[in-house]
Amino acid sequence: MRYGIIGVGAIGGYYGSKLAYSGQEVHFLSHSDYEFVKEHGMQVDSCDGSFHLKQVNVYQHPEDMPKCDVVIVGLKTTNNHLLPELLPPLFHEKTAVVLIQNGIGVEADVQQMFPNVPLIGGLAFICSAKTEPGHVNHQCYGSINLANYSCKDEALMQTVVDEFRQAGIETGLVEYHEARWKKAVWNMPFNGMTVALHTQTDQLLKNKSTRQLIREQMVEVVSTAQHLGVKNLDAKFVDKMIDMTDSMTPYSPSMRLDYDFHRRMEIYYLYTRPLEIAREAGCPMPKLEMLEAELRFLEEERLKRS
Amino acid sequence: MRYGIIGVGAIGGYYGSKLAYSGQEVHFLSHSDYEFVKEHGMQVDSCDGSFHLKQVNVYQHPEDMPKCDVVIVGLKTTNNHLLPELLPPLFHEKTAVVLIQNGIGVEADVQQMFPNVPLIGGLAFICSAKTEPGHVNHQCYGSINLANYSCKDEALMQTVVDEFRQAGIETGLVEYHEARWKKAVWNMPFNGMTVALHTQTDQLLKNKSTRQLIREQMVEVVSTAQHLGVKNLDAKFVDKMIDMTDSMTPYSPSMRLDYDFHRRMEIYYLYTRPLEIAREAGCPMPKLEMLEAELRFLEEERLKRS
Repeated sequence: MRYGIIGVGAIGGYYGSKLAYSGQEVHFLSHSDYEFVKEHGMQVDSCDGSFHLKQVNVYQHPEDMPKCDVVIVGLKTTNNHLLPELLPPLFHEKTAVVLIQNGIGVEADVQQMFPNVPLIGGLAFICSAKTEPGHVNHQCYGSINLANYSCKDEALMQTVVDEFRQAGIETGLVEYHEARWKKAVWNMPFNGMTVALHTQTDQLLKNKSTRQLIREQMVEVVSTAQHLGVKNLDAKFVDKMIDMTDSMTPYSPSMRLDYDFHRRMEIYYLYTRPLEIAREAGCPMPKLEMLEAELRFLEEERLKRS
Repeated sequence: MRYGIIGVGAIGGYYGSKLAYSGQEVHFLSHSDYEFVKEHGMQVDSCDGSFHLKQVNVYQHPEDMPKCDVVIVGLKTTNNHLLPELLPPLFHEKTAVVLIQNGIGVEADVQQMFPNVPLIGGLAFICSAKTEPGHVNHQCYGSINLANYSCKDEALMQTVVDEFRQAGIETGLVEYHEARWKKAVWNMPFNGMTVALHTQTDQLLKNKSTRQLIREQMVEVVSTAQHLGVKNLDAKFVDKMIDMTDSMTPYSPSMRLDYDFHRRMEIYYLYTRPLEIAREAGCPMPKLEMLEAELRFLEEERLKRS
């Protein structure tokens, strides 16, 4: 299979390079790092073993790329308005798209852009960052869950899973709604709260008041998901997420990094969209609504300053 | 009547000095500014006309003070644990206490300390600050509402009102529960939110998201108060408070000043106590609960740093 990777950052750069290093045919689209990667290739510094790709198929314009069987989108959702321009040149009749992105509602919106394209959700559990052009630093974790959104070709799904695994990526196959909402249970409290209180996961859990608040916000997500009919998700999952985070090293989620590095925050798909869905379902999430308002305030204040 | 004033800060210093300047007999208790005030008197720089009190009855220890007919408490509620030590030396059999303090539940707790003392709530609408020892800067507003909590002596209440008015203080006589809850409608959103987002009233209302959040938090307070049977308080009061704040100059509420000047915040009576009352009444205020948790986090983080 031929893979197209949109974006060579923390996500696209890592998973794309792993696939290429394992021998798959991979073509990267890079906006800002094209020149560097063309000349120097990709360097992945990884807790699982570092490696260098000397020769990389990299392109600055999607029109220059070959048609691909699977296109992996590793952009932040704040750039999804670019997809109608970036993806079609890579499509043949059966191209599937894997969206390794955060939040709720991403696949529904991308499906509206491309009604006939099979979509697969990608849920990455990884600490990685692009530290310089062509350079990804993979600190820990790294597994991915693939969730079928609208791909009728089961064999294709399985091939993607197999080839990810062959590339040394721990890969699960999961139910779409369950996977997205389970991830939201962790993402919605921790991403925003680390920004709002300018802190890290461990401090939020050490403080009695915010530990309780994080738990209540998780319960809001679980209640909404249950209300929507999502399976295998109950109060025990909240305990599991709290325990898991207690055992993690102090962590700054992606939204905190986006805020610190003056990138736009993914407020829309991490908050606005699931909050809308919750309200429409008659099961609002008041504490997460408040968090969204605080994040919008902080983002606008920062835009004023810059 | 003889007045005792506990604290010569922004509140006690202002109202006590106004009473003294109008000719009332006033005795001030001051912990830190005793020496200065003894020597230099009190200076009030005021938008309504500045004045100086050359000779002030000031004391460092309550045991040295004469018995008073009315004791006015101008301390922050964070110092109310000191009242059992500070007040009794000033009491005769009929002494009444006016608590010019913020929040919900203050009178109930002080009544437990002094079961037989007549209590009056004092709700100040004032921008003032103690800028140096013996020096109060009164920027604007200045009215006070007195609310009878447990004073059976109607004549005494009326005398206090009359003497405040003679001192040039705009003074209203209001129903206790209505007054405390109406003030909470403004206080609970703005005090905490200006700390949580490190901003001022005007910025919170200019931003579409936080304007909506402030409104929702006000509605939480109104709903709880209505649930508790408080009269003359409905959704229209929320509009009135928003309009009033729109017309104010950018303002930092007392909690923001306390936070900025590294004083303990009045979280207990401004949040914890009314939130408890709301939960017990079966009418929780989730967005204000979240705000309390954020404030407790910020206070503990600051204590760690200092």
